Amino acid sequence: MTKIDPWGSVLVNDYSKLIEDFGIEEFNVKLFPNPNRMMRRGVVYGGRDLKIIAQCIKEKKPFYVLSGIMPSGDKIHFGNKQVVENVRYFQDHGAEAYMLVADLEAAATRGISLEEARKRALDFHIPAFIALGLDPKKTKFYFQSENKDVTTLAVLFSKKVTANEFKAIYGSLEPGRIMAAFTQCGDMLFPQLKKRVPGIIPVGPDQDPHIRLCRDIISRSKEMKFMPLASVYHKFTPALNGELKMSKSHPESCVELPEDIKLVCKKINRALTGGRETLEEHRKKGAIVEKDMVFELLKFHLVESDDELNRIYTEYKSGRMTSGELKEIACKKMTEFMNDFNSKLERARKEVNGLEFIR
Amino acid sequence: MTKIDPWGSVLVNDYSKLIEDFGIEEFNVKLFPNPNRMMRRGVVYGGRDLKIIAQCIKEKKPFYVLSGIMPSGDKIHFGNKQVVENVRYFQDHGAEAYMLVADLEAAATRGISLEEARKRALDFHIPAFIALGLDPKKTKFYFQSENKDVTTLAVLFSKKVTANEFKAIYGSLEPGRIMAAFTQCGDMLFPQLKKRVPGIIPVGPDQDPHIRLCRDIISRSKEMKFMPLASVYHKFTPALNGELKMSKSHPESCVELPEDIKLVCKKINRALTGGRETLEEHRKKGAIVEKDMVFELLKFHLVESDDELNRIYTEYKSGRMTSGELKEIACKKMTEFMNDFNSKLERARKEVNGLEFIR
Repeated sequence: MTKIDPWGSVLVNDYSKLIEDFGIEEFNVKLFPNPNRMMRRGVVYGGRDLKIIAQCIKEKKPFYVLSGIMPSGDKIHFGNKQVVENVRYFQDHGAEAYMLVADLEAAATRGISLEEARKRALDFHIPAFIALGLDPKKTKFYFQSENKDVTTLAVLFSKKVTANEFKAIYGSLEPGRIMAAFTQCGDMLFPQLKKRVPGIIPVGPDQDPHIRLCRDIISRSKEMKFMPLASVYHKFTPALNGELKMSKSHPESCVELPEDIKLVCKKINRALTGGRETLEEHRKKGAIVEKDMVFELLKFHLVESDDELNRIYTEYKSGRMTSGELKEIACKKMTEFMNDFNSKLERARKEVNGLEFIR
Repeated sequence: MTKIDPWGSVLVNDYSKLIEDFGIEEFNVKLFPNPNRMMRRGVVYGGRDLKIIAQCIKEKKPFYVLSGIMPSGDKIHFGNKQVVENVRYFQDHGAEAYMLVADLEAAATRGISLEEARKRALDFHIPAFIALGLDPKKTKFYFQSENKDVTTLAVLFSKKVTANEFKAIYGSLEPGRIMAAFTQCGDMLFPQLKKRVPGIIPVGPDQDPHIRLCRDIISRSKEMKFMPLASVYHKFTPALNGELKMSKSHPESCVELPEDIKLVCKKINRALTGGRETLEEHRKKGAIVEKDMVFELLKFHLVESDDELNRIYTEYKSGRMTSGELKEIACKKMTEFMNDFNSKLERARKEVNGLEFIR
């Protein structure tokens, strides 16, 4: 049942279960031209209605890609980077790209005023997304609180779903959840008010309930003639201690952006690795690459070339490369990445002034 | 327990029960200068935090009054008239008046597009409200779909209430209900974003859940420093057949605005009355005024002067006036009222072009 991942991942089974349980399609990399690093390596593992999007790309038909920014805190994380890279992939292959700033959601769940959320988004989050690869000239940004189409759709959609149905998807009927879910559904479909074309939403697997709700609503709103909403899922960047997902509540195994590079290298040095107890054993048996979170970091983020990653894999697997050497590579690559991110962030801060926001 | 209503009403007991069950204060007419017809006659029967509003009036301190227009259909009803008269009362006594057009609600519950809702509101509903006494120069109108403050507050407020609490108030957790309730709460409090002053909402008793929800939210949002939200309740105009409330689904006992006056007089002639079986019995025992829906119509809407109403009451109660004569009076007054309404409606249609809407 479980597909073998050539670069190994302890997490494969969890994601296969998601595919089985929720009827997510496996991601077929052959459908997509010039797949990005995550697509090639099985980090992008599934989706819904992917063939429709592949068809749009192939036939150069219009479609859109949409994602969002949560303007709280003063850091972003590698999950954001993954989303940006997928948005960028579809943008580069013909999609109109939308990026919402979830200021309403930040105000409601984090107690941040709309003004403060706006300030943070402009000072940091939007520039950070641009630094990660979002093209500001080709992306339509908006603040959730300023997009009337979104809130209008949210109200309309709320009549299409019963309490029982909502509970079946979310396991909860808390009013805050309901409001947030329909607002997100408004976000995902408002681009179609102008033009009915398919859309795709790149998300982590935890966001699938929103996608299911929205797809249910489309199928119940025949009169609105929406085109299909596709989705594409990436695996979470695993935490350095081997947990499923990096989490701020365990800072020792989580890397945020930006972060002091010395601190990050320290974290990498303490990561869960696949190295053996003794050097002798390591040389003899080779590393257990599947358990190595430093290798995961290289695979998910830090090594662009497949040849290079394959070389590292082979060296490490054979025992010729030690865990310490692997960590050195990771620290060096991370330093390059972080320096690059920081300088792009500075540059992007200047570009933000010229942005126009949809209202 | 039940207060004796000098003009009699079969419905007194139901409203007393509302007061008991939901902790509504009885309306103390002495608190309010120059009470309007409905206040003087016990049609306005209760409220919440009325003393705060009475204090504002007495000390000429700022407060606001807010109500709404549902832009569906091509008629309004006597309940709308009651609301407008109460809004006008508070407007005349120092309140800043707000009137929302519930275009979002109309779109969600009646399937009317926002464009259509806007058109109907401008063509008919707003002019009709002006015809009923709303001063367009002193009233701030807005469309729910265009007021970002309202939707922003709705999202914020949704986090303040649990599913269980919502269910205790509304008896339902349907997403559409939840969305509508928090949106209404946003309506009721958005005027305070500019200035924290008390507000009052004139409503029928069926709207009390919205008031309770909103007051609960205020008490949980200390950081927002909202001032109290008061409410004032009027009894429903009873149906001509003696039912609690006029209803479109029983057109024979319901009068809408505008309506053909001949048809209305026909309905009045078939109304439930307090007249006796025979003229002889009527002269001897007098009418049972408490059961007479034609008298209710005079009391609620058609006779402004208390002296005149008292005179009619005495004549009818004593048996000197027959039920037929009472109906003649009602038909004559209704004709005057409907003609006046129609001509004011025409005039108001011209005033609508100059209105500015809050966004």
